Amino acid sequence: MMIAKTQDRRHPAPARGLRGARPRISSPVHTAFRSGETRSKKPRTAPIATPKYAHVRIVPLGGLEEVGRNMMYLEYVDPKSANHGDIVVIDMGLQFPEDNMPGIDYIVPNIESLLPKREHIKGVVITHAHYDHIGAIPHLMPELGRNVPLYATDLTLAIIEKRQEDFHPPHSLNLNKISSDTVLKLGAFELSFFGVSHNVPASVGVVLRTPIGRFVHTGDFKLDVRSDIAGKLELEKIKELGRAGDIRVLMSDSTNARETGHQFSETDIQIEMEAIIKNAKGRLIIGTFASLLGRLNEIIQLAERHKKKVVIEGRSMRNNIEIARRLGYMKFDEKNIIRAEESSKYLPEKIIVLATGAQGEDRAALMRIANRQHRSLQIQPGDTVVFSSSVIPGNERSVQLLTDKLYREGAEVINYRMLDIHAGGHAKQEDLKLMIELVKPQFLMPIEGNHSFLKMHAKVGLRAGLKPEQIIIADNGQVVEASREQVALTKEYVPSSYVMVDGLGVGDVKEVVLRDRKMLSEDGIFVAIVIVDSETLKVRNSPDIISRGFVYLRESKELLQQARGIIRKAVEETAGKMSPVNWTYVKDMLRERLGEFLFSKTQRRPMVLPVIIEV
Amino acid sequence: MMIAKTQDRRHPAPARGLRGARPRISSPVHTAFRSGETRSKKPRTAPIATPKYAHVRIVPLGGLEEVGRNMMYLEYVDPKSANHGDIVVIDMGLQFPEDNMPGIDYIVPNIESLLPKREHIKGVVITHAHYDHIGAIPHLMPELGRNVPLYATDLTLAIIEKRQEDFHPPHSLNLNKISSDTVLKLGAFELSFFGVSHNVPASVGVVLRTPIGRFVHTGDFKLDVRSDIAGKLELEKIKELGRAGDIRVLMSDSTNARETGHQFSETDIQIEMEAIIKNAKGRLIIGTFASLLGRLNEIIQLAERHKKKVVIEGRSMRNNIEIARRLGYMKFDEKNIIRAEESSKYLPEKIIVLATGAQGEDRAALMRIANRQHRSLQIQPGDTVVFSSSVIPGNERSVQLLTDKLYREGAEVINYRMLDIHAGGHAKQEDLKLMIELVKPQFLMPIEGNHSFLKMHAKVGLRAGLKPEQIIIADNGQVVEASREQVALTKEYVPSSYVMVDGLGVGDVKEVVLRDRKMLSEDGIFVAIVIVDSETLKVRNSPDIISRGFVYLRESKELLQQARGIIRKAVEETAGKMSPVNWTYVKDMLRERLGEFLFSKTQRRPMVLPVIIEV
Repeated sequence: MMIAKTQDRRHPAPARGLRGARPRISSPVHTAFRSGETRSKKPRTAPIATPKYAHVRIVPLGGLEEVGRNMMYLEYVDPKSANHGDIVVIDMGLQFPEDNMPGIDYIVPNIESLLPKREHIKGVVITHAHYDHIGAIPHLMPELGRNVPLYATDLTLAIIEKRQEDFHPPHSLNLNKISSDTVLKLGAFELSFFGVSHNVPASVGVVLRTPIGRFVHTGDFKLDVRSDIAGKLELEKIKELGRAGDIRVLMSDSTNARETGHQFSETDIQIEMEAIIKNAKGRLIIGTFASLLGRLNEIIQLAERHKKKVVIEGRSMRNNIEIARRLGYMKFDEKNIIRAEESSKYLPEKIIVLATGAQGEDRAALMRIANRQHRSLQIQPGDTVVFSSSVIPGNERSVQLLTDKLYREGAEVINYRMLDIHAGGHAKQEDLKLMIELVKPQFLMPIEGNHSFLKMHAKVGLRAGLKPEQIIIADNGQVVEASREQVALTKEYVPSSYVMVDGLGVGDVKEVVLRDRKMLSEDGIFVAIVIVDSETLKVRNSPDIISRGFVYLRESKELLQQARGIIRKAVEETAGKMSPVNWTYVKDMLRERLGEFLFSKTQRRPMVLPVIIEV
Repeated sequence: MMIAKTQDRRHPAPARGLRGARPRISSPVHTAFRSGETRSKKPRTAPIATPKYAHVRIVPLGGLEEVGRNMMYLEYVDPKSANHGDIVVIDMGLQFPEDNMPGIDYIVPNIESLLPKREHIKGVVITHAHYDHIGAIPHLMPELGRNVPLYATDLTLAIIEKRQEDFHPPHSLNLNKISSDTVLKLGAFELSFFGVSHNVPASVGVVLRTPIGRFVHTGDFKLDVRSDIAGKLELEKIKELGRAGDIRVLMSDSTNARETGHQFSETDIQIEMEAIIKNAKGRLIIGTFASLLGRLNEIIQLAERHKKKVVIEGRSMRNNIEIARRLGYMKFDEKNIIRAEESSKYLPEKIIVLATGAQGEDRAALMRIANRQHRSLQIQPGDTVVFSSSVIPGNERSVQLLTDKLYREGAEVINYRMLDIHAGGHAKQEDLKLMIELVKPQFLMPIEGNHSFLKMHAKVGLRAGLKPEQIIIADNGQVVEASREQVALTKEYVPSSYVMVDGLGVGDVKEVVLRDRKMLSEDGIFVAIVIVDSETLKVRNSPDIISRGFVYLRESKELLQQARGIIRKAVEETAGKMSPVNWTYVKDMLRERLGEFLFSKTQRRPMVLPVIIEV
C-alpha cells in the first residue's frame, strides 16, 4: 500500500503538485495547531507542470486521522473542459475536543483551500444526520456563501434545519431534498446514491460519475441485510456498481476496521433488547444517544408490543424522535409516550425511560436522574439502567462515576460489558471485505478513522484481492490525484489543521492561547503589581499580589510576605543599576527571580505576570 | 446485603457510633473536596454510649470508592484490656488524579482520624509493592512519626526504600522485613501472612488474630495455581484458614469483580507471549508497566530461551528489575541484557525492547521512541509493538494517539484488543467465589474497587452461600464494628476526603484553588489595571490590560480598545457618584460590567481581575 510520507518505490510517482502551493488566504477561518503532532512538517512542493490530462483531485479535509470532522471535496481538473474546476463537497462534520484543549467547544474542518474556489462549488452533499457529518454546517456554510446548495435526504435535512435554530444570527441555508433514487448533475459530476444501514435512517452512500470514471463514497455504513430500522441497505445498487465496473476509487468507512468478523444486525440487538424489556421487573431506564434513531425506534416499538409506556428525557432526543415521526421514519401510538410526571401513575414495570447522557455527561438526563436533580424522576430500588451505546474513548471515567452513582441509588446496571447491546453502526472487517468484493474498485481509499484504522482497513483490502499499489492511505489535507492513467497520493497538502470553535470564535483560539490555558490550569497565575517612584526608583508601599489557582492564599500568608520582599528587592536592585532604566529588562528579571522563588518553595510554576507602574 | 446509607431492615442495627464524632484535628494534612460527589453529606452521629463489650473497629480510609489509595486501619477497643486502643494499619497507597484536578500530582488518603492516635499505632503492614498500596508512604509516614514500624516482604521493602530516594529531604523509615511465614505480635493483634499470586512477586495477604476472632485481608490477589512467577500462592494456608474457622471478616479484592469466570494463569499469558516472541520476524518492542515484575520476568526468561537480547528502557523499570534480580526474584544471564546503543549490532529479530509507557504517557520510553526523540531507538518497518497491559480508564485517547504514531512509523501493533496478553493480576468472579468458599468467613467485606464493583462482589458472596446480612459494603471513612456478637456498618464516618499532592504541598490545594484552575483553563484570565487620580477620580492614561488564555491578543486589538473604554467609564461613573469612594464596590462594578462586555463579544467568561491604584 502507499504510505503518506514516502512514495511507493514499486510504482512510479505521477506528475504531482498540479496546482501547487498557493499563497495563504486571509479569511475568517484560520488554521490552528495539530494536537500532539510531532512528525516532521508536511512538505508543500511547488508545481512541476500543468498536466495535460483530465483528472479528479480528492481532497480530504478531515476524518482521516481521527473519528470525527468528516469532510472532503472532489475537484474536476481539465482546462479544456467547460467544467474545469467544478467541486463537490461531501459531509461537513465536527470533532469533539481533546484533553489538551480546555474551553474548546469543538473542532471543525479547515476550509482555507476551498475559500478561493467558492464559485466553483456545485454542491455540498451530506450522507447522514450525525454530528461528525453535519456538525460544522452552521460554522462553515456561511463562509462558502449563500448560494451553495446543500443536498441531503429528508431526515438529514430536517435535523440540519433544527440545529440551525441554536445559532444566532440564523443563517438560512440553500437546502435541497434528495432521496436515494435522485440523480444530480453537479457540473462535471453526476451524483447518484445508495441507501445504507447505519444507526440513523435515511443514510446514504454517494456515487460520483465523472469523465474519468466513477467514485464511490460509502458514508458511515454497515451491511445489515436483516433489518431496515436504522437505514435501508440497497444491496442491489451496490452489487450493480461492481457489475457495471469503472469504479476508480472506493472511499470506505474505517470506523470499525479494528474489529474482526461481521457487525451485528439490528435484529440481533432487538432480540437482546426485547429480552431485557420483557423481563424487567421494575422500571427500565435506557441511556443512549439522541442520534441513534434506529435504536430509539426499536425500543419504542418493543415497548408498544409489551404494553409499556415510554418517557423521553432529553431535549435533543425529543426533537429527533418528533422529526423522525413526522417524516414517517418512526410509527408509534402517541398515547404510549408519557411525560415524566405521569410515570408515577403506572406500575414500575410498565415504564421505560429513554434518556440522553449514557456517556456520563454532566448535565444530561441520566446524570440528573442519578444525582436526584431531576424534577420528577429519581432512581428507586428495582430500577434497571441499560447503557445502550458504547463508551466514547475519553468518557470512561465519567461513565464509571455515573455507574457508581446508579448502584449507590439502588439500581441494577446493564452495560455493554455484559451484553452486546451497544451501537454497532459500522462495518467490521468482514463487512468491509464484502463491500470491496461487491464494488470491485480499481483503488481503495480507507476514510473515516484514525491512521491505524485506515492501515487495518488496508489489510482487509489485501485480503479482498487488491494489490498494495491499489490502496491509498492519505492524511488529512493530502491531495489524491485520479486520472484515467493512475490514482495516486501526491505530496501536495492543503491546510487541514484544527479549527477550534470557542463560544463565538471560530479559529481564533491559537496554540499560544491553549498553551496559556494549560499552564494556568496546572499551577495558576501570580500577578505582582509594583508601583515605583520614577525619581528615587524605590518601590512605593508594599507590592500588590493577585494570585489564582496557585496556592490557597489564606494559608499562605508567610509565602506572600516573603514574595513581596523578593519583588521589592528584584525591582530596586535591577532598576538601581541602570540609567536610563530599561523597564522591560526589569520586568524580565522580576519574572525570573519571582518564578524561581515560588518554585523553590512549592515546586509549582505559576504563570508570573509582573506589572510595574511608574509614578 | 447492608447498604451504606440505610440500615438493613431485616437485621436490627447494633449499638453504633461508639466513639462518635471527634473535634476536627488541626494537622498539616488537610481535607479537600470529594470529586464529583453530590449525594447528601455523610452524617456524623454523636456517641450513643460506650459499649461494654470488646470489639474491633475497621476503618477504611480509601480504596472503597475507587481503584487506588488503598488504606485502612483496625483498632482494638476494650477499656478493660491493656491493649485498648491498639491500631494496625494496612497499606498506604496513592490514587491518580481525575480529569477535574488539573495540576494535581496524585491523591493520598486522609489520615486526620489517625493522627491523635499516633501513639497507639503498633505497625503499618504493606501487602505488596504497587503504588496504589505504597505510594502515600513518603507523604504520610512522616506524619505518623518516626517510630512507627513498617512491615513488608523483602521485595516490597526494597521498592519502598528506592522510592524514598526521590523525596527531599529524605525521611528515614523504620523498615522491618517479614516473610509470608512471619508471625508478628502487634499489641492486641497477632499477624500472620499468606502468599498470593498477583502480578508482582512477594505479595501477601494478612490474617489478624484478635480476642474477638480473626480478620483476613487479601491484598490484591488472583488464584494462580499453575505459576509462581508473579507471586507464590499459598493455597494450603488459605484452606487452613477455613478449616480452623473463626474468621469474623474476609476483606477481599474487588478490582476485577465485574469480570465473569476465572482469571488467566500467568502460564496462559506466557504461552501467548512465547508465540509472539518466537514468531517475531523483526524487533519486538513490548510496552508494559515497570511494576509488572512477573510479566517482565516472563519476557526476559523467554528471550533467553529464544536466544534474543533484551533492552530495558525506562528508569523505574531498570530499577525494579535490578532490585528483583538482587533479591533472587528474577534469574537471568546479565549478558543477555544490552544497552539500546548496542542493539544495532544484532539482527532485528534478535532484539526485544522492554519499555515503559504503554499508557501513552508523554515522556515515557515508548512515546519517545515513537516520536523519534529517543537517542538510539527509532521505529523501523518490521518492528512489532506489543501493548502488554490493559489501558487504565482515562488513558484511552493517549494510547490511541501512540498507536497511530507507531503505525505511521511503520510498526505493527498488537494490543489487548487482539490478544489476551494484558495484566490479569486480579481475581475474577469465580476466583472471588472460591476464596469465600475456602476461607468460610462469617462476614464478607468487599474492598479495593469502585462502589459498583463492591456491589458486584457482594452478589458473588450471595452465590457463595452468604446471606445478605453477612455482607458489608462500606464507604471510605465509614467505620465497621466487629464484636463477638455482631459485625455491622455504623453511621460513624471519619474524614476520608481527597488529600491532593501538588509539588511540595500535601493537602494545601483546596477546592477553591481547583475551581480557579478549571475556570482559568476554560476561558483564561483578564486583568484590568487602572490608575485613578485620587483627587479628580479620573482614570490616568489608558488602562492596562493583561490577558492570558482568553483570546489571541494580536488579533483582538479592537476588542481590547473597546474594553479600555468600558473600564474607564465603569470606574469614573461609579467612583464619581460616591464620597468617600468605596473602592471595593467600584471594583465589583468594574468586574461585572467588564465581564458582561467580554461575554457579549465572545461568549467566553474569562476570570476578570480588576486592580485599581490610587495615586
